[in-house]
Amino acid sequence: MSTPSVTKPAPPPTTLAAALLAHLDPADVLTAPDDVEPYRSDSTGVRAARPPAVVVVPRTVEQVQAVARVASAHGVPLVARGAGTGLSGGATAPAGGIVLSTLGLAGLRIDPDDQVAVVGPGAITDHVDVAAREHGLMYAPDPASSQTSTIGGNIATNAGGLRCVKYGVTRESVLALDVVLADGTLLRTGHRSVKGVTGYDLVSLIVGSEGTLGIVVGATLRLLPAPTVVRTLVVSVPSLPDAGRAVGVVTGSGVRPSTVELLNAATLENIDAHSGTDLVERHGGGLVLVRTDGPGADAEIAALADALAAAGLTAQVLDDAEGERYHELRRTGRGRRDDLWSVGEDVAVPRSALVPVLEAIEEIGRRFDVGVTAVAHAGDGNLHPGLSVPRLPGETAPPARLHEAADALVRAALAHGGTLSGEHGVGSAKRPWLEDELGPEQVALQRAIKAVLDPAGILAPGGFLADDGSAVN
Amino acid sequence: MSTPSVTKPAPPPTTLAAALLAHLDPADVLTAPDDVEPYRSDSTGVRAARPPAVVVVPRTVEQVQAVARVASAHGVPLVARGAGTGLSGGATAPAGGIVLSTLGLAGLRIDPDDQVAVVGPGAITDHVDVAAREHGLMYAPDPASSQTSTIGGNIATNAGGLRCVKYGVTRESVLALDVVLADGTLLRTGHRSVKGVTGYDLVSLIVGSEGTLGIVVGATLRLLPAPTVVRTLVVSVPSLPDAGRAVGVVTGSGVRPSTVELLNAATLENIDAHSGTDLVERHGGGLVLVRTDGPGADAEIAALADALAAAGLTAQVLDDAEGERYHELRRTGRGRRDDLWSVGEDVAVPRSALVPVLEAIEEIGRRFDVGVTAVAHAGDGNLHPGLSVPRLPGETAPPARLHEAADALVRAALAHGGTLSGEHGVGSAKRPWLEDELGPEQVALQRAIKAVLDPAGILAPGGFLADDGSAVN
Repeated sequence: MSTPSVTKPAPPPTTLAAALLAHLDPADVLTAPDDVEPYRSDSTGVRAARPPAVVVVPRTVEQVQAVARVASAHGVPLVARGAGTGLSGGATAPAGGIVLSTLGLAGLRIDPDDQVAVVGPGAITDHVDVAAREHGLMYAPDPASSQTSTIGGNIATNAGGLRCVKYGVTRESVLALDVVLADGTLLRTGHRSVKGVTGYDLVSLIVGSEGTLGIVVGATLRLLPAPTVVRTLVVSVPSLPDAGRAVGVVTGSGVRPSTVELLNAATLENIDAHSGTDLVERHGGGLVLVRTDGPGADAEIAALADALAAAGLTAQVLDDAEGERYHELRRTGRGRRDDLWSVGEDVAVPRSALVPVLEAIEEIGRRFDVGVTAVAHAGDGNLHPGLSVPRLPGETAPPARLHEAADALVRAALAHGGTLSGEHGVGSAKRPWLEDELGPEQVALQRAIKAVLDPAGILAPGGFLADDGSAVN
Repeated sequence: MSTPSVTKPAPPPTTLAAALLAHLDPADVLTAPDDVEPYRSDSTGVRAARPPAVVVVPRTVEQVQAVARVASAHGVPLVARGAGTGLSGGATAPAGGIVLSTLGLAGLRIDPDDQVAVVGPGAITDHVDVAAREHGLMYAPDPASSQTSTIGGNIATNAGGLRCVKYGVTRESVLALDVVLADGTLLRTGHRSVKGVTGYDLVSLIVGSEGTLGIVVGATLRLLPAPTVVRTLVVSVPSLPDAGRAVGVVTGSGVRPSTVELLNAATLENIDAHSGTDLVERHGGGLVLVRTDGPGADAEIAALADALAAAGLTAQVLDDAEGERYHELRRTGRGRRDDLWSVGEDVAVPRSALVPVLEAIEEIGRRFDVGVTAVAHAGDGNLHPGLSVPRLPGETAPPARLHEAADALVRAALAHGGTLSGEHGVGSAKRPWLEDELGPEQVALQRAIKAVLDPAGILAPGGFLADDGSAVN
C-alpha cells in the first residue's frame, strides 16, 4: 500500500493565485503576508513553518469544486479550515498550499417536520442550536468551542462535548454529507431518514477524517426535541477514588444523564482564581457535576441523588440558577493564563481505567514538575488534563519537560486500553503517537483508503496520515 | 476505479476441501450435498442457483485466517454466514464458493466494570443481552430475530430493532472489531472506550458492510444499564393521518421513548388471526405502541399521555402485563403463512414522509392487487410493509405482480427522500435498486474502497456490490 504524496514542485504563489482568481472574487483570494499569516496556526498554538501560499474563501459549492480542481492541477496541498478553533493542528497547511476557509459557506435551514438542519460547513455550531430551538428542537453536540467553532470543523474532528454522554458525538448527529473530493467531484452521501443501511457508511468515514478525504460543503444534521426541563446535582468528592465511585454510581444507575463532568481540586482552584467563586471551599478535593433533562429529569435526578446517598456520597440537587452557573463554570470558567506554558490533553479510556489514569496523571505531574488540572467528560471516560509550567521571561518555547509529561500522559492512557484522542482529533499535534495506537498495518490501510479518494494526496497532506515523522509542518 | 472480481476458474471442490482440511477438523468441513444444501438460502427465501462447494465451521480466529488464505489462493468466493436469519440474500455464496459459518466462534464475556461485552461473531444476540442482565446491564439493539440471529450477522447488516429509536442501531453499540481480511490479515480496530477519534472510523465502515470487506471474528459491544422500569401506552389510530399525528406528537414531545411502533389495520387482523387476540375490536384502524424505560419512565409516559390527549388522540397507559403482551404481539404475533407468497420490505423515510409513504403503500396494494400489512419503527421512519398474494396450488414461484408491487414500493420510498433499506441490508435481494439510490459514481467509489481491503474480490462477491446485474446468484 503506497503512501499518497504531493510530487509536483509547488508553483509560485502568483501562478496559483491567478488560476484561483479565474473562479473566485478577488476579495476572496488572499495572498498578502498579513492576510495569510493568521491561517498559519489554529488554537493548538502550533505554527506551520511558513504561512500558506493562498487563502481562499469560496461562496458556492461550485467554487469549492473549482478550487479543488486548481489544487489538483497544480499538485499543491489543499487544507479546509473553519473557525480555527481546532486543538490538534489539523487545519494548518504545509507551505505552498491553499487554505480553504469554509466561512463563506454558512447556510443554515431548519426543517422542523423532519427534525433536521441543512447547513453549510461554515455555520457556527451554536447558531444551529439557537435556530433549532426556535422550533422546540436542539442540536445536541456541544463542544466547549460551540460559540465559535463551525459545523465543518466539528465534522472534521467528530467533535464531542458535555451532552454526548446522552446524545452521542457529532457522528451520531450527521445524517448526510455533501463532500467535494480532491478532483472536484461532488459526492452526496447519507440519508435524510434517521436510519439507512444502503452501502458502506461513507458519512461515518468522512466524519472525523480531518479534511484528508474530502471537503464537506453541506451537511444534514439530526435535531432532537429540546428538553424544557434540566436538573443538576453536584457531588463533592474528596479524593479521586471517591470521584471514580461517584461516576460509577451514576453510570450504573439506569439513568442516562445528559452530563457527567469531573473536576479535580486543581481545576476548582483554577476556576476560583479566574471566576471569583468558592468551589474549593464548598467541595474540597473535587466535584462531579451531573445533569438530567427531559420530562423524566426530576425523577431521574432524584433517583441519582438516592443512589449516591446510598453509596455514602454527598450529593446536592441544585436549583436552576445554581445548576446553570455550575454548568457555565465548567464550560468556560477556567480562562487562559498568559503566564503559563500549557498543553490541553484529550485522551479517552475504558470506564474502569478512569481512576487509575487520573492517579497516573497526578503522578506524572509530580514526576515532571508540571501543574496538572483534570477535567473529564467522565461518563464517557474522556479526560482533558491540562499540563502547565510557568512561562519565564524571555522564553520563546516551553521547557522540554512539558512535552515529556504530555508524552507520558498519552502513553499512560494507551497502556490502560485507552485512545490518544477522545474528541479533538490527531492532526499534526498527536501524529507522533498514531502508530502506537493503531499499529503500522492499520495506518497503512488507512492511507490506502485515503488514496482511493485522494490519489495524489493533496488534501491535508500535513495531517494525521502524513508519514514524514514530524509533528509540525 | 475498477471492479473487484474473481478471475480464477473455480477449482473442483475436492481440491478446495483438501486444502481446508489441512487447517480444520474434518467434522468442520462440509461437502456432502445434504450438508451444504441448507446454506444455499437465508430467510429471504431466495436460493442461490447452486449450493456452495464447501461449508466450513472454524473454531478459532487462526482457522478463519487459514480459510481466508485458502480462498485467496484458490481464487474462490468466501461468504461469512451466521444463523441464516438475513432478509436480503447477503449470506448466500455463488456456486463454487466457501460458506464460512461463524457459529463455531460464539465466545461471550461480560465486563461489567467497562460496561462492555466481548463476543465472537457466532454469539446469539439475545444471549448477549441475557448475560448482560446478570450484571444489571443490557445489549440494546433488539432486531426481531434476536432470539436466533448472531451478533456477526447483526454487525454485517447494521441491524436495528424496536429499541433503537432510543438507543441507536447496531453501529452505535459496536466499540471495536477484530476482522480477518481477504488475505488472512487480522485487523484490530476501534476502542474499548466509549469515545475515540484516532484515525478513520473503520469500525463504522465494517458495520453494515455485509461481509464484503472482511470477516468479523470478534467484537467489543457497548452495554447500557438495564432499565428496571418499563412503561407502555397504546394509541388507537382510526386512520393513517391519525397515526402520523400520534407519531409526530410522540417524537416532538421531548421524551425519548424506547419504542414507537405503528401497526395498521391489516396487521392487527393478521395478529388477531394468528394469536387469538381482539386488537381490531379494540383499536380499529390501527395502533401506535409507545414505551418508555428507566427511572423517568413513569414521568415520561404520563407526559406522553397528556400530549396525546391534548392532541385529541385516545391513549391508554397499560399495566406491566398488558404492556409486555402488546410488545410481544408486535414482535412475534404475526406468524408465517404457508398459503401466501409474501415479501417483507424494509424502507426508511424522513419523518415527514411517513404518512405519505404509508398512503402510497396502500395505493400500491390496490393497484397491484396484493395484500398489504404495514408495521413500522415509526419513530425512526423505518417501515416494514408486508406484501402478499395467495399461493395457488401447483405454483412454484410468485406471480410477477408481487415483485412489481415491491418495486413500486421501493421507488415510492426513494421518491420521498427515503432509503431502500433501513436495517435489513441490500444483499442480492435489493441490489437492483442500489444505483437508483446511490448513483453510479458512489457505487464506483464503494467498489474502489472494497478493492483496497479485498483486491481480488473474493469476499461476498454476489453481495450488494456485485455488478452482474442479476438479483440472485
